[in-house]
Amino acid sequence: MSFDTVIHGGTIVTADGQFRGDIGITDGRISAVAEVLDGGVERVDAGGRLVMPGGIEAHAHIAQESSSGVMTADDYLSGSVSAAFGGNSSFIPFAAQQRGQSVDDVLATYDARGARSVIDYSYHLIISDPTEAVLHDQLPRAFARGITSFKVFMTYDLMNLGDGGMLDILEVARHHGAITMVHAENNDMVKWMNRRLADKGLTAPKYHAISRPQLAEEEAINRAIQLAKLVDAPLFIVHVSTAGGAEIVRREKFNGAKLFAETCPQYLALTRDDLDRPGMEGAKYICSPPLRGHDTQEALWHHIAMGTFESVSSDHAPYRADATGKFLNGPDVAYPKIANGMPGIATRLPYLFSEGVVKGRITPEQFVALSSTNAAKTFGCTTKGRIAPGMDADIAIWNPDVARTVTHADQHDNMDYTPFDGMEITGVPEVVMNRGRTIVAHGVLKASEGQGRFFGRAPVDLRGKPGFTAPEFDTAQNFGSVLR
Amino acid sequence: MSFDTVIHGGTIVTADGQFRGDIGITDGRISAVAEVLDGGVERVDAGGRLVMPGGIEAHAHIAQESSSGVMTADDYLSGSVSAAFGGNSSFIPFAAQQRGQSVDDVLATYDARGARSVIDYSYHLIISDPTEAVLHDQLPRAFARGITSFKVFMTYDLMNLGDGGMLDILEVARHHGAITMVHAENNDMVKWMNRRLADKGLTAPKYHAISRPQLAEEEAINRAIQLAKLVDAPLFIVHVSTAGGAEIVRREKFNGAKLFAETCPQYLALTRDDLDRPGMEGAKYICSPPLRGHDTQEALWHHIAMGTFESVSSDHAPYRADATGKFLNGPDVAYPKIANGMPGIATRLPYLFSEGVVKGRITPEQFVALSSTNAAKTFGCTTKGRIAPGMDADIAIWNPDVARTVTHADQHDNMDYTPFDGMEITGVPEVVMNRGRTIVAHGVLKASEGQGRFFGRAPVDLRGKPGFTAPEFDTAQNFGSVLR
Amino acid sequence: MSFDTVIHGGTIVTADGQFRGDIGITDGRISAVAEVLDGGVERVDAGGRLVMPGGIEAHAHIAQESSSGVMTADDYLSGSVSAAFGGNSSFIPFAAQQRGQSVDDVLATYDARGARSVIDYSYHLIISDPTEAVLHDQLPRAFARGITSFKVFMTYDLMNLGDGGMLDILEVARHHGAITMVHAENNDMVKWMNRRLADKGLTAPKYHAISRPQLAEEEAINRAIQLAKLVDAPLFIVHVSTAGGAEIVRREKFNGAKLFAETCPQYLALTRDDLDRPGMEGAKYICSPPLRGHDTQEALWHHIAMGTFESVSSDHAPYRADATGKFLNGPDVAYPKIANGMPGIATRLPYLFSEGVVKGRITPEQFVALSSTNAAKTFGCTTKGRIAPGMDADIAIWNPDVARTVTHADQHDNMDYTPFDGMEITGVPEVVMNRGRTIVAHGVLKASEGQGRFFGRAPVDLRGKPGFTAPEFDTAQNFGSVLR
Amino acid sequence: MSFDTVIHGGTIVTADGQFRGDIGITDGRISAVAEVLDGGVERVDAGGRLVMPGGIEAHAHIAQESSSGVMTADDYLSGSVSAAFGGNSSFIPFAAQQRGQSVDDVLATYDARGARSVIDYSYHLIISDPTEAVLHDQLPRAFARGITSFKVFMTYDLMNLGDGGMLDILEVARHHGAITMVHAENNDMVKWMNRRLADKGLTAPKYHAISRPQLAEEEAINRAIQLAKLVDAPLFIVHVSTAGGAEIVRREKFNGAKLFAETCPQYLALTRDDLDRPGMEGAKYICSPPLRGHDTQEALWHHIAMGTFESVSSDHAPYRADATGKFLNGPDVAYPKIANGMPGIATRLPYLFSEGVVKGRITPEQFVALSSTNAAKTFGCTTKGRIAPGMDADIAIWNPDVARTVTHADQHDNMDYTPFDGMEITGVPEVVMNRGRTIVAHGVLKASEGQGRFFGRAPVDLRGKPGFTAPEFDTAQNFGSVLR
Repeated sequence: MSFDTVIHGGTIVTADGQFRGDIGITDGRISAVAEVLDGGVERVDAGGRLVMPGGIEAHAHIAQESSSGVMTADDYLSGSVSAAFGGNSSFIPFAAQQRGQSVDDVLATYDARGARSVIDYSYHLIISDPTEAVLHDQLPRAFARGITSFKVFMTYDLMNLGDGGMLDILEVARHHGAITMVHAENNDMVKWMNRRLADKGLTAPKYHAISRPQLAEEEAINRAIQLAKLVDAPLFIVHVSTAGGAEIVRREKFNGAKLFAETCPQYLALTRDDLDRPGMEGAKYICSPPLRGHDTQEALWHHIAMGTFESVSSDHAPYRADATGKFLNGPDVAYPKIANGMPGIATRLPYLFSEGVVKGRITPEQFVALSSTNAAKTFGCTTKGRIAPGMDADIAIWNPDVARTVTHADQHDNMDYTPFDGMEITGVPEVVMNRGRTIVAHGVLKASEGQGRFFGRAPVDLRGKPGFTAPEFDTAQNFGSVLR
Repeated sequence: MSFDTVIHGGTIVTADGQFRGDIGITDGRISAVAEVLDGGVERVDAGGRLVMPGGIEAHAHIAQESSSGVMTADDYLSGSVSAAFGGNSSFIPFAAQQRGQSVDDVLATYDARGARSVIDYSYHLIISDPTEAVLHDQLPRAFARGITSFKVFMTYDLMNLGDGGMLDILEVARHHGAITMVHAENNDMVKWMNRRLADKGLTAPKYHAISRPQLAEEEAINRAIQLAKLVDAPLFIVHVSTAGGAEIVRREKFNGAKLFAETCPQYLALTRDDLDRPGMEGAKYICSPPLRGHDTQEALWHHIAMGTFESVSSDHAPYRADATGKFLNGPDVAYPKIANGMPGIATRLPYLFSEGVVKGRITPEQFVALSSTNAAKTFGCTTKGRIAPGMDADIAIWNPDVARTVTHADQHDNMDYTPFDGMEITGVPEVVMNRGRTIVAHGVLKASEGQGRFFGRAPVDLRGKPGFTAPEFDTAQNFGSVLR
Repeated sequence: MSFDTVIHGGTIVTADGQFRGDIGITDGRISAVAEVLDGGVERVDAGGRLVMPGGIEAHAHIAQESSSGVMTADDYLSGSVSAAFGGNSSFIPFAAQQRGQSVDDVLATYDARGARSVIDYSYHLIISDPTEAVLHDQLPRAFARGITSFKVFMTYDLMNLGDGGMLDILEVARHHGAITMVHAENNDMVKWMNRRLADKGLTAPKYHAISRPQLAEEEAINRAIQLAKLVDAPLFIVHVSTAGGAEIVRREKFNGAKLFAETCPQYLALTRDDLDRPGMEGAKYICSPPLRGHDTQEALWHHIAMGTFESVSSDHAPYRADATGKFLNGPDVAYPKIANGMPGIATRLPYLFSEGVVKGRITPEQFVALSSTNAAKTFGCTTKGRIAPGMDADIAIWNPDVARTVTHADQHDNMDYTPFDGMEITGVPEVVMNRGRTIVAHGVLKASEGQGRFFGRAPVDLRGKPGFTAPEFDTAQNFGSVLR
Repeated sequence: MSFDTVIHGGTIVTADGQFRGDIGITDGRISAVAEVLDGGVERVDAGGRLVMPGGIEAHAHIAQESSSGVMTADDYLSGSVSAAFGGNSSFIPFAAQQRGQSVDDVLATYDARGARSVIDYSYHLIISDPTEAVLHDQLPRAFARGITSFKVFMTYDLMNLGDGGMLDILEVARHHGAITMVHAENNDMVKWMNRRLADKGLTAPKYHAISRPQLAEEEAINRAIQLAKLVDAPLFIVHVSTAGGAEIVRREKFNGAKLFAETCPQYLALTRDDLDRPGMEGAKYICSPPLRGHDTQEALWHHIAMGTFESVSSDHAPYRADATGKFLNGPDVAYPKIANGMPGIATRLPYLFSEGVVKGRITPEQFVALSSTNAAKTFGCTTKGRIAPGMDADIAIWNPDVARTVTHADQHDNMDYTPFDGMEITGVPEVVMNRGRTIVAHGVLKASEGQGRFFGRAPVDLRGKPGFTAPEFDTAQNFGSVLR
């Protein structure tokens, strides 16, 4: 065997165990894993390091306009660079349909934007306008090129599809084998709270947290799951931020729903108290669903350890704390007019490693699963997410012992702040590779713009998901499984 | 003491026990309960009989147009007569707002209709159009005259308020101390199923059951409860027809929701198989939520025995199986065009007594609670529902030993069928009194049209309902209880 | 009607409601309840008062030697007087078998002791030695005279029967219709903890709480229930002191176990911190199961309000804080040598009224059920526990408005302290009657020694308890319900 | 690299995924895994095959006398051969202490027996007599040589330790890092049922199932878990046979217990009806816990798919259906005198593969975890259970497509029957290797007696098990975590 690169002497961690060994890379793929490998045009010393699958960031907003018209600060260049510095070898940002826009047009737009990426990328397709043409013509076409995940919103007036729209999309997704992702918050609850708060003149950033109560998420998570069960379609709940929501996910998974879920570091690391920082500082911590309390943090960590969530994702939504982002509508506006979201693509994995692995809440194997392997399975990244022969050489080499303080400069993004600023963490991804190419090494960017490739994805992997079978109406005798 | 009437020698059953004794009635009230009472202008022999509070029928559609324009076969005369033959001393039908109609107009209309009743009556007010004038002007006025319960729908295009409308009504209800009743089925799920069934040409009555799956009720029950929790308002779930729905009610009650619920005899006695009777016979069994399966029957009985439900109500919705009712849209139409509902006001209590008390599933004391005492507490009927001095002499004297077969003739209603036809039951209400007047005695109507009186009601009794406290926004520091 | 006594003008509270009215008493029974009653040899003015069934204290140790040989400070005279001052019209202390003793001998002993009581009394029979003669000869004889409740211990070396002994007693109890009460703590867990604590020299009173962990109760409650389910026998869990135990009770009741339970005021009012009072003061707070924490208090109150418990009982176990009681083994001994128990028969109801009713945690109707009506049903006191014609005139008239501070002098017992000392409470039972005789009136004892009567009791009332049916082995084909 | 053996062209399955590739073996270890490997002294063609970690059988009775004196038919030679034919590369039978026997003596005895094995082996140590010398001297010595798992019984008079004995062993196990396995059935319940059945003369084999009701297992599982929680010790529940038991395991795992569990194929494939076969045929199906019903089978499969169980083990307990085994006490004895257990070491994996993987209930990855990887982690087999460089070359090559009928001849054991006889299954382990040596190939035994080696094991891996922390008594202020 001849290798382009050999990573030698590290502790290789996979989702099911660890071992000391070498990795041989040929033509961008992992061609061998062995106790010892000789050769290699390049040899990377991984002694004392953990060698893991590179992270797959499955929840990021990159070069995306919000429905209210704010463009993210990060495009596919800065976003992918920041992701790589954070230990990611690939990512799957959103391609977002605006109402009235065709899916083909959406994808053409994002293809142009994606071309700048330094790491491999794919898209989840956000659907805000499920017309007949979208459902039956454009979505199948998108699916055919490997866009196998759709995202819908239950909140925001310009995005919210209603239960009927969700059923239509779930049905199409199920037919093709796509998975539907959902932002679950009850829109009417939020609007009702907004009105009550406005009536009382309560507009400071901290009221954002009140305006989107935990009940709103819990209700919507439950409803989304029931809608998916009706159609027998797989469902992915994004950014679960409540203990109640996590508990519903756990219960419904056991009861047989084809269900997947994630949470995000901000719900583990920050609280609603951060929204009450002096002046408009709290605006930096406005995201939806909002930050919660300390009890929630503990509950979410427990659910992570216990397997309720497939992934921990960043929900990187980089709006600068200036007039291009958070304050597009003015410097001192009421919370509903402040752009919604925070960056985190570079901190997701260092935070999870430090607070999870280093503090003993999760094992290194769980870290691999939560950061990479599960996302690959859920979203059909068949050549990524594992260290095994034949897989893309998407690899991150971590030094588990380095302690450091998070600064904005570390993020290598296009933002002007990080909400994790000042946090003390341990562990750093020293080398990050994508298809065998070194993207980042010891704090230095090695890749150049446009090296990343778009990758199509396979249908969602539902093996081992028992349970509910779809209603069938084909014969007069069959009352179907919706009846009990 | 001098008595107009003495009921002597019976076994008096209350919600908390039984005893042998006599009841003295003066001026329409129970003036004394004693081991033995002498005197009485009239003496009623209750030897070998159970003497119980007369039933309060809290769920009946009387002289009411459906949103699709079908008028019920029973008006307040026939409906009240049928109720009395079924052991009821009073009832609370619905006064239904049509969209665009003022509440004052609604009440004036129903006052005219109610005037024919032979037993006391009140109304639950159905709201389909919660304008600002309705919410803040008309509802308070209705509340002031003792209309302390509002009903909303989560299904039917012409009735469904949306979550926002429900929140508005729940808030007004909470402010005044009214209880909000809800018909909980997810409208979009039903419409989606209707469309799928129509696409396949599946239009026979039995498809009605498929079109409204259990998931649709379970989802909507959960959502209604979360909406009420947000506002900290009391909520009453009508006609729970699923084990899943009952379980949600049980769980949320324990968790502190101000929650009440009922089920109905049809969900205990009938199944979706009845919808598959030959020809259009199945149409007689179309009601919403639809009939379910045998497992559901057992689960609902268990929940009744265990205290999940406050009441068992009839949901009497009398549409004749002819062109005035079920088949207003034609004799052979698709199930969505068949009028929705079935009669049962005369069978509710005989069925519950026979299958419940006689078969040992519930105690006589539970029968009293489920048929009368709890409804009085829930809906603020402060002078009804108990056998105690000072209460209205609303009394039913039951012979627990008479076995009989249900026939339509027994119903004394204006219908042309009963869905309970042919059922063998044991126990009959031989004498029914309302405010001391004998309404029915041994199968003979003794009252005349218009003897019943409207009664205003008190606010919902929430004593002993712990838990959730409403969000308060009065100070900038108070993040309220919606945050956890 | 002619009355010996008329209580007039009060608000009469029963388990299912309240009303203004008068009560007529004849020959010790309630002969009439009416809006107004004239006459009466004696007339008691109850204006502004709550007139309720007199309390039934169903858990008290009176004139009873502990297994380690300490005699309670209260005998049937002082104990019944204290009970009456606390609003009780009757009580059911324990008659305790010592190992080797016949049940007939036990009952003869207690009959002699009971003869001093000022209020009616019965016994629960504690069984520590279930020989064949006891099981099949003596217990049936005791049952025949109305001793329809047996108590067993899962802890204490001299009392603990083992699972096999419990099964034997449960089977006999089921056969006759008796209910089995159980003190549920895992004996081996406690002994293991004792040994560990002793090894470390941790012997102060506060270690008593550690030595009997919540796990020990939760495990034993679960085990007792499973044993009872095997035999299909009714079971009563005494003095539940843990949230976990309460939750098991709640779950198993719903699942169909023939299950009853109580908790006690000390678990609501006190905590393990009381065991850490200076010097040996903590010894006064040693009881088993031990006091827990604040979270437990809240959870138990919630379970009380939600109906998990039938009763709140005192577990009055009056050992003086001197060499006759707590310190029989010396003044400064290790916690396992300190007598175990605390008084509370006079504070049970005032505490429950004040913290429950006055503070809005429970309704007056629930207070009646928890203090009297449910105990009467559970333990077959067919003539007690309700205000209804024909029932014993066991009545307590409460002034709900009097605020006072608990002192030991109020207890009227033979103790030298009360653990509730100094607590501020509202509400006082001003007049307490037993079979029409006034026992206590406005702080003055009116009864004389020996006025109380023993009362035999009926079998446990299992109506409305669905579920489990006993295994049947009568035919070779019947595998019974123990199989699923 | 030079390889002794190369397995090429197969689909390699690990617990976290699949890939096409080759495996290189050197000195008994997996030295490389690659897309393609050249060389190899021996080359094994795995085209069209699944290449998986060889099974680890973690529950087998081999050359073991039961407490009633029956010796298993299989010794380490026949048992290991049968295991290998069933796809296993190693196993961990029990070394069983008889009361009065020292652990050193036990291990010496089993070392002599184990020496005949054709595959690698270790022992779980059954403790029936936890004297001080055993606990504090002999167990530590056993642990030091890698016996890191102890087993205790809650049933059988000669084995049952009582709760106190269990606590002692759990404490020692926790101190050293050993895991305690438990056979959980309530002994007193079983004895009570036996007595009742005997009283009625019900002695046929089918009554064995009645005599050990599901309640007995559910109760004991719960109790064992609570005991382990008290000590904060890891616990492994063997052969869970009830839905209720599985649910307790699931709940307690989530709640933080350090808990592991297995079920067995017989509870998935057979039912209590098999005990009712004609004559004494039913005796072949006597095992403890006993076979259950069809509902249980479905529930257990669901728990397997959902991750409740770490492993599916055989509980191979080979007693011949003759006078040396089942009928040692006579040919026609009552069920309690029939030897207890059934063989299954050769069918465990083929059954699990066929009914699990082939029928789609579990994925191939789950099969690997359930058959090998998880057992290695739980029981500290650090060099086994995974296909990764450096691991022992314990490999099974399965042909997933071969359909066959189970016969006794296939078992290659020393028994005279298999309870799975006649079952149609798909999938066969064609080649089984242990440390690179081929043990079985295409139905032919390739190994010779005594080739297997004893392997010591590491402490239980508790990483990722959150939750309960042990009580600490070190300071007077610390009330420890047993208090809530």
